Amino acid sequence: MKQRTINLTPEELPREWYNILADIKMNPPLGPDGKPISPEMLAPVFPMNLIEQEVSSERWIKIPEEVLDVLSIWRPTPLIRATRLEEVLGTPARIYLKNESVSPPGSHKPNTAVAQAYYNKVFGIKKLVTETGAGQWGSALAFACSQYGLDCEVYMVRVSFDQKPHRKTVMQTWGGVCYPSPSDRTNAGRAVLEKYPDTPGSLGIAISEAIEIAVSDTTGKTRYSLGSVLNHVMLHQTIIGLETKKQLEKVGDYPDVIIGCAGGGSNFAGLSYPFVYDKIHGKQIEIYPVEPTACPTLTKAPYVYDHGDEAKYTPLLAMHSLGHAFIPPPIHAGGLRYHGIAPTISQLVNDNLITPKSITQLDAFDAGVLVARTEGIIPAPETNHALACVIDEARKAKEEGKEKVILVNFSGHGLLDLGSYEKYFNHELTNFALSDEEILKSEKIYETFPKPELIRSF
Amino acid sequence: MKQRTINLTPEELPREWYNILADIKMNPPLGPDGKPISPEMLAPVFPMNLIEQEVSSERWIKIPEEVLDVLSIWRPTPLIRATRLEEVLGTPARIYLKNESVSPPGSHKPNTAVAQAYYNKVFGIKKLVTETGAGQWGSALAFACSQYGLDCEVYMVRVSFDQKPHRKTVMQTWGGVCYPSPSDRTNAGRAVLEKYPDTPGSLGIAISEAIEIAVSDTTGKTRYSLGSVLNHVMLHQTIIGLETKKQLEKVGDYPDVIIGCAGGGSNFAGLSYPFVYDKIHGKQIEIYPVEPTACPTLTKAPYVYDHGDEAKYTPLLAMHSLGHAFIPPPIHAGGLRYHGIAPTISQLVNDNLITPKSITQLDAFDAGVLVARTEGIIPAPETNHALACVIDEARKAKEEGKEKVILVNFSGHGLLDLGSYEKYFNHELTNFALSDEEILKSEKIYETFPKPELIRSF
Repeated sequence: MKQRTINLTPEELPREWYNILADIKMNPPLGPDGKPISPEMLAPVFPMNLIEQEVSSERWIKIPEEVLDVLSIWRPTPLIRATRLEEVLGTPARIYLKNESVSPPGSHKPNTAVAQAYYNKVFGIKKLVTETGAGQWGSALAFACSQYGLDCEVYMVRVSFDQKPHRKTVMQTWGGVCYPSPSDRTNAGRAVLEKYPDTPGSLGIAISEAIEIAVSDTTGKTRYSLGSVLNHVMLHQTIIGLETKKQLEKVGDYPDVIIGCAGGGSNFAGLSYPFVYDKIHGKQIEIYPVEPTACPTLTKAPYVYDHGDEAKYTPLLAMHSLGHAFIPPPIHAGGLRYHGIAPTISQLVNDNLITPKSITQLDAFDAGVLVARTEGIIPAPETNHALACVIDEARKAKEEGKEKVILVNFSGHGLLDLGSYEKYFNHELTNFALSDEEILKSEKIYETFPKPELIRSF
Repeated sequence: MKQRTINLTPEELPREWYNILADIKMNPPLGPDGKPISPEMLAPVFPMNLIEQEVSSERWIKIPEEVLDVLSIWRPTPLIRATRLEEVLGTPARIYLKNESVSPPGSHKPNTAVAQAYYNKVFGIKKLVTETGAGQWGSALAFACSQYGLDCEVYMVRVSFDQKPHRKTVMQTWGGVCYPSPSDRTNAGRAVLEKYPDTPGSLGIAISEAIEIAVSDTTGKTRYSLGSVLNHVMLHQTIIGLETKKQLEKVGDYPDVIIGCAGGGSNFAGLSYPFVYDKIHGKQIEIYPVEPTACPTLTKAPYVYDHGDEAKYTPLLAMHSLGHAFIPPPIHAGGLRYHGIAPTISQLVNDNLITPKSITQLDAFDAGVLVARTEGIIPAPETNHALACVIDEARKAKEEGKEKVILVNFSGHGLLDLGSYEKYFNHELTNFALSDEEILKSEKIYETFPKPELIRSF
């Protein structure tokens, strides 16, 4: 028997998260006055224990036992040696898939949802509110809240809510409540509905609604929760890469190339940051965040200060951004349709530690179907982007006759995205590439904001 | 950290299946002439290596390395100690879930699909044909065929094909072809369509179409494949129980009660047969196959000789049966809507080694939602029946103040069955109980067949 999976025992679960803020320099988030924000300014939105994590520069942060207890439902996750994919590609490369699709909600998202629900619970919070686009994040937070007895309220972009009724059912099964956004439950929602009663909604509006519900609860027992972008979210995801290191050690391997798809950036960061630490300390590794050509934040957009949401409720973050009002084309990888990206990822690009790539929708689905037929797991549309990059690298290794080790985050399964596979098989999917005019047009939005310094961490 | 999951390493994968035919006596299958069939009579339908397994009475049968290689994509599967469910129920019982939902198709079905695809491949077969009701089995066989480079053709009951287009997409993603049944591709299908152009189809018709396609391929390179009922299918599933034994040994526990839902019976058999062996040798265990009240084969139907399919293509099998023309009410646990059950399970009931139970649809979904909210995994509607029985037993243990160990097969996840959860939350699900008249009516069908002997194995 060829050994396909490398497992860890529950005792081998990492006990600390890795915090990349200990090792790089960053531009601070700015408030409405253009000055760096203080932790207190975020207190109505997040609990103070998470705000402390957001600004911490401790390299190792202990994972609470109560968080490990819930994570151990599905963690440690398997590392799969993709031998059949290697055979079909005829590549000398060794390909490893870190399989985050085995969590109950089917993706890496609960790694941070569980931690956030725990810290809110400890802080005395009774209810979390969030937005969700395609529904993956809302499902993960509903799952996490069910584990700690918190209420969960999710504002889901109207068009997705209507197209994917099953996502609402998933949240409901875990006890969460899901409303289409814009709704008549908030000032923000009502204002939009009055102007555009037939609007399909947007992530920006949904964020506004979620924040408004959170901050307007006069009992002080409700907070908002975000599933990507922020430092503490990246921190919680590093358990992925820390497990992977132990697994590769067991088979005496180490990656030459690390790949993850990137929307807000959390699954990419989770796998790669513990290896970025090694790279800072001299290891030779190529590290590729992969985005869709339809939303080329890192590959085409400038490094600016911009808001994380359309309604400008969030502080200004120093990041690559297509502009906070940018509406990406309707690709099926809903999780990659974000105008900005995690500030830490933007800084790593500035530091030349990671190299962004982009992939078209059709190349992504070609890759996903090939991986499903060889390795057996149907990937999420987002994951397909990373897998297309893996296949490119494996083919390059073949051309060069190099025994490369390629590591990729298999961030989620596609069992709730089969409609997009159906369209692919029916030849109803198309590619979208963004013209430079469109990018230029979106740039104007942040022209009036302060400009971030181009910091080099080293 | 409380340890929630008990994992095995890939090296601890069982290397042999347990064959219960070594330990019990059975009535033989009969041919059209009323005499026991010979292995050769099955040769046009199944490859000879699988027919040999079907009739073997060797207690331990070696699992080929090439089968272990594919099973190791997701096996060994986790055993979960359901501590949060125990807490919510306030029970002194220790509840263990054997989590078969982690396979790529989401259920236990690929345990036998992979083995069957392998043996067909070794025998020189190029294509497998099967039927599927709700789609779980067809998906598993398409997955297995993709792993060995076989073609796969699936006839899916028309009404399910229309209601669940995603199941077809799953099969297609793994390279399988799925047709609604009745189709115009077979004599059987065309005959039905001529008479009833608007028929919703039935499992009986789909089986007829699949067998017809298999046996009429003049190259001799096509065979039929069945996902439950037969001895070799039960055999392949015993890897579930064999793994579980090792896992329980690691924590020093042993089950007092073993529970699995039962349609054709394969997931129940897979978990319980290795423990039935212990019971034969003196262990005290209660073993419960759980069926829906809407299809009460073991709890209400007689032990008779009957066909496995409506079109009477199969041999006569000695089993409990509601009659091969019985159409069960439209419960959402499609995998449990079968008129008969595995002959080995029927014999174990006759031997008083196992005790059938039945559960209503609403009790099943109540249980599934409670388990989703405590243990985090959304169960398949079939699995919900087993979980309802677990909750009954855990409550009984509380009343009796007994520290029972309850073991259940968590046979599949519900991510492709969310429509039924939606109906549950919208109060659109109802219970179906079968009246004695309805059962009596269906009995008449097999009155003309030979009667099986009531054998006692001991």
